[in-house]
Amino acid sequence: MGLEPFSFFLFLATQALVAATSRGTYLEIPHQIHLLRPKSGARTNDVPDLSCLSWRLAVETNNIIGWKTTPEKCEGYLGHYMLGQQYREDSEAVAYEAIVYAQSLELAGDGREIWIFDIDETSLSNLPYYAKHGFGVEPFNSTLFNEWVNKGEAPSLPESLKLYKKLLSLGIKIVFLTGRPEDQRSVTENNLKNVGFYTWENLILKGSSYSGETAVVYKSSERKRLEKKGYRIIGNIGDQWSDLLGTNAGNRTFKLPDPITHLLPLCQKTHS
Amino acid sequence: MGLEPFSFFLFLATQALVAATSRGTYLEIPHQIHLLRPKSGARTNDVPDLSCLSWRLAVETNNIIGWKTTPEKCEGYLGHYMLGQQYREDSEAVAYEAIVYAQSLELAGDGREIWIFDIDETSLSNLPYYAKHGFGVEPFNSTLFNEWVNKGEAPSLPESLKLYKKLLSLGIKIVFLTGRPEDQRSVTENNLKNVGFYTWENLILKGSSYSGETAVVYKSSERKRLEKKGYRIIGNIGDQWSDLLGTNAGNRTFKLPDPITHLLPLCQKTHS
Repeated sequence: MGLEPFSFFLFLATQALVAATSRGTYLEIPHQIHLLRPKSGARTNDVPDLSCLSWRLAVETNNIIGWKTTPEKCEGYLGHYMLGQQYREDSEAVAYEAIVYAQSLELAGDGREIWIFDIDETSLSNLPYYAKHGFGVEPFNSTLFNEWVNKGEAPSLPESLKLYKKLLSLGIKIVFLTGRPEDQRSVTENNLKNVGFYTWENLILKGSSYSGETAVVYKSSERKRLEKKGYRIIGNIGDQWSDLLGTNAGNRTFKLPDPITHLLPLCQKTHS
Repeated sequence: MGLEPFSFFLFLATQALVAATSRGTYLEIPHQIHLLRPKSGARTNDVPDLSCLSWRLAVETNNIIGWKTTPEKCEGYLGHYMLGQQYREDSEAVAYEAIVYAQSLELAGDGREIWIFDIDETSLSNLPYYAKHGFGVEPFNSTLFNEWVNKGEAPSLPESLKLYKKLLSLGIKIVFLTGRPEDQRSVTENNLKNVGFYTWENLILKGSSYSGETAVVYKSSERKRLEKKGYRIIGNIGDQWSDLLGTNAGNRTFKLPDPITHLLPLCQKTHS
């Protein structure tokens, strides 16, 4: 990471804080960088008296769960975070730890060592979609989201792609395990390949037999099936705790940052 | 929370960021608020190219594990965080969610419903100690730390005390489960009572039979014993993931912020 982008981020943050200080509260900062949508109209998941920084940390540490939308007052903060350098650096920190861990292993090299990758907000980023839809403030709209997914234009998360390439170079196989439904297999495969995820041992999408099941149940069950087939899950990375909890989670798990999307308990969102 | 303290925090943060911007990097900010110790002399846990913000988030989300000291370059950042308003607000966010959860329960009121509290950095705060010892930059010194503990002067974490009182008012019993050793029982009891934790169903300290066991093994085992006695663990709060992982963790767990202390795998620190 060069200093220039971080300095620019600091400059922007400073401007925001100066504005905030003069107004007396962080929450009144106008959207100076991305004026993507009006501030009104969406339902909120308001948490009284909590700062957006605290809200984000509590979501990332699995303390705030079961939320449907991000707090409306935090749209500006979350937008700055997601589009700014800090989200990139936070993702890099996770990928770095995962690479250090992978490099520390004594691998058998028998082709049965796998690493589980979630897809949305882990391998592929839907940030271009969420930037147009309030960074989680708008209630999730599966029709619009699926239209976006079916374009197959999601960029990679560059930090995850870096990890992916390193794992392949170490001889570790990749298994994608996603809450996307089977009917998005083709578009998902093409999207993955187009952004650099060019090979995998398996790409598991959510079959209709899991309809109504939670992500934890679905993903635990599929991981168990992999282990029964003789695979050893040496790592597991995702942006949702539901990717990493449950059973058969792998020898070590890695939680990527994601303060704007959330899986509801009974699959009201079809992706994870 | 009033706006004034937060505004003051923002003012301080702004000054720091302005200084950072003019210098080109956040890491060169002088210790303007608390000049408690020189910047040199301690061993480091340096992570190249990672910002201190990313380091903190990665620690809080259990991505960076097994560390012995906080990065030396982050002492200033961590000190500002721990002594500033943000640590308080982040703790308040967790306590708030825990209270909302507890209030949502249909309690049996049979006296078997318990909530597990860790002690250090959860019920009692050792921040006065760590503020004099580099906010985790200095290698942990059990002699000095035990001298501090044996004074019995640790303040409460006010957010946890608020949760504690609310739980008692709902008829939930409290069990303290700590990595502190049995020989600190008396000082711990007195310290807890002096700061407002005036009653408990049980206070479990780490007996010699667990010598050499990890915190996860010790705490899982003790929680299992509680459940065998007929208690139902409806909540569990701690600052370390080792308080919340393992078995018999409780119906829901809450992770308080703590970017400066860390339990090493084989109890090189005797507290948790």
